[in-house]
Amino acid sequence: MIDDGEFIRGKVPMTKQEIRVLTIAKARLTADDVAVDVGAGTGSLTIEAAMKCRKVYALERNADAVELIKRNVEKFAVDNVEIIYETAPRGLDRIDRIDAAIIGGSGGHLVDILNEIDQRLVTGGRLVLNCITIQSASTALDWLRARDAYEHNAIQVQINRIERVGRVDMARALNPIFIVDAVKRRL
Amino acid sequence: MIDDGEFIRGKVPMTKQEIRVLTIAKARLTADDVAVDVGAGTGSLTIEAAMKCRKVYALERNADAVELIKRNVEKFAVDNVEIIYETAPRGLDRIDRIDAAIIGGSGGHLVDILNEIDQRLVTGGRLVLNCITIQSASTALDWLRARDAYEHNAIQVQINRIERVGRVDMARALNPIFIVDAVKRRL
Amino acid sequence: MIDDGEFIRGKVPMTKQEIRVLTIAKARLTADDVAVDVGAGTGSLTIEAAMKCRKVYALERNADAVELIKRNVEKFAVDNVEIIYETAPRGLDRIDRIDAAIIGGSGGHLVDILNEIDQRLVTGGRLVLNCITIQSASTALDWLRARDAYEHNAIQVQINRIERVGRVDMARALNPIFIVDAVKRRL
Amino acid sequence: MIDDGEFIRGKVPMTKQEIRVLTIAKARLTADDVAVDVGAGTGSLTIEAAMKCRKVYALERNADAVELIKRNVEKFAVDNVEIIYETAPRGLDRIDRIDAAIIGGSGGHLVDILNEIDQRLVTGGRLVLNCITIQSASTALDWLRARDAYEHNAIQVQINRIERVGRVDMARALNPIFIVDAVKRRL
Repeated sequence: MIDDGEFIRGKVPMTKQEIRVLTIAKARLTADDVAVDVGAGTGSLTIEAAMKCRKVYALERNADAVELIKRNVEKFAVDNVEIIYETAPRGLDRIDRIDAAIIGGSGGHLVDILNEIDQRLVTGGRLVLNCITIQSASTALDWLRARDAYEHNAIQVQINRIERVGRVDMARALNPIFIVDAVKRRL
Repeated sequence: MIDDGEFIRGKVPMTKQEIRVLTIAKARLTADDVAVDVGAGTGSLTIEAAMKCRKVYALERNADAVELIKRNVEKFAVDNVEIIYETAPRGLDRIDRIDAAIIGGSGGHLVDILNEIDQRLVTGGRLVLNCITIQSASTALDWLRARDAYEHNAIQVQINRIERVGRVDMARALNPIFIVDAVKRRL
Repeated sequence: MIDDGEFIRGKVPMTKQEIRVLTIAKARLTADDVAVDVGAGTGSLTIEAAMKCRKVYALERNADAVELIKRNVEKFAVDNVEIIYETAPRGLDRIDRIDAAIIGGSGGHLVDILNEIDQRLVTGGRLVLNCITIQSASTALDWLRARDAYEHNAIQVQINRIERVGRVDMARALNPIFIVDAVKRRL
Repeated sequence: MIDDGEFIRGKVPMTKQEIRVLTIAKARLTADDVAVDVGAGTGSLTIEAAMKCRKVYALERNADAVELIKRNVEKFAVDNVEIIYETAPRGLDRIDRIDAAIIGGSGGHLVDILNEIDQRLVTGGRLVLNCITIQSASTALDWLRARDAYEHNAIQVQINRIERVGRVDMARALNPIFIVDAVKRRL
């Protein structure tokens, strides 16, 4: 588990530690896996995934974010990350076979991204989405339900950080997030 | 129900609309009641209470906050508010009889405040506390449980505001708050 | 404020006290208002509304629920409730003019219900929806955004009841709910 | 990550998957570590810990729970778990050196348990508490703050499971939990 403060961050929003931990766990990565992190942002999920599997493709459309990913890859000395500087679903066609897909951001192209990933996701492959909007959660759930090949679950997670203020503890709320995860049971 | 934006606010933290609504409802104010708002802050709870009962004492130790209460009293044209510029429990001795006590802030003197209010609260009187710290919630619950004269309830409330960002809706979390309410069944 | 335990309840799910309080507050009922409670269930919102305005139509499609509403109307001795035993949007055409519409349940006909209410809601009229599903919250938000005549807000509310177990306090979570509220600014 | 349904469960309450994942992550277990799981319950945290470190002591006072732990140890075929059937802090004196302590339940003896663990926890050792009561969260935070040797963090986690009901998705709330974690910086 990496602390939030260890990542090099710019103005790009970063997935918080607890959400990273849950996302990576639900991706059930194994040493042989090829993973893709769509909307990689600072690369925090990319780095955590890279420590658990063979190869991670980080797809990101924002130039500043791509720069941050590069710097974090260097800082954490992971040598199995390939950055694809593209707007998803573009760029996904460079990957032959996906064992696990993490979608942190979809830039309004979620259905296209899911369709493209579906083409490449192996049987037994996992799909994990972090949805900060009601629409993306709905869209992901609708897409998964229309496809019998997938088994899925979804949660909404709300984390309050307990912070010391003087002699008392106050709860500071982080924004809630939906985590949708699925397994592809067959092609 | 008054919108948050209608109150004159400074840098003093203000109880948010939904929490005000729940707090005032749990105080079960009637037209004849004398209420006290301890740690009145901007006076938002004071104003809402003043619209429902005979008299509200607003106890506040911070000079800037007292100024805000005065301006809000003027803006909302309520003529039944008396401001006590003191650090509670000091100042409570100026009130003979309390039908409903709202405690929005206690400045670390919660037990003393509760003891002082207890002296003045009538049978059938209500006590409602907004606790933003774990300690004040614990202290209030412990105090109430040690007193058979009181029946109490407590909730933790978490509100997420759904906000439009471009074409999607995101949830922005407000910090959670404990609301403890009690009725004094006998003296 | 009425306690949950005061209502006569069957197996019909009931809006919990805190949600009732927030919903009624957001409906901003005044003494002259005509309100409608769509999907009235046990009638708990109907009763609370009836205590604040001139007339409340309770629309409900379930026969058991209609029976509960009748019994609660009797218990709380309100004489300004008219029950419409119909599946909304059917039945709404019996109401000429609506000042405030509360939608507690929509049975999958939310858009039709909103369209029908829109025909009858006066300028300045309020619309408050309790949405327990992601889909109904999304649908309500989409409908409102497509109509410039409406100004709206939305929150997600999560209430944890603090319950005493032996010598300690545990939080028991109630299911979260979306409350969407809107004002019709012009016809 | 193990699904909740994979564990053999009786009437003993079980730590839910997401809370297990966060707890184990915060314990930062390494292959050489000796861990203790105090108030092990069904042994779900014990099993997850056993898969990541050298040895796990599962301390549990309830005979039914001890039986469940045994059965889960067998089911998951972990050979590095030692069950201590005792009421903590009793039983902790059988462990010489602790690298990571997980406290899932304290049975009202939290301070004694923390004091006893403190005697055995190495420099760099981790302490992670799952607190379902306000009192245990407060007690843990107070204990940690009184000890400069420890650096700590705390969160409150609320998980809503999104469940399909007919054609819609509803959120079913799990009870919130506090997770307090600390590192012992020096002896």
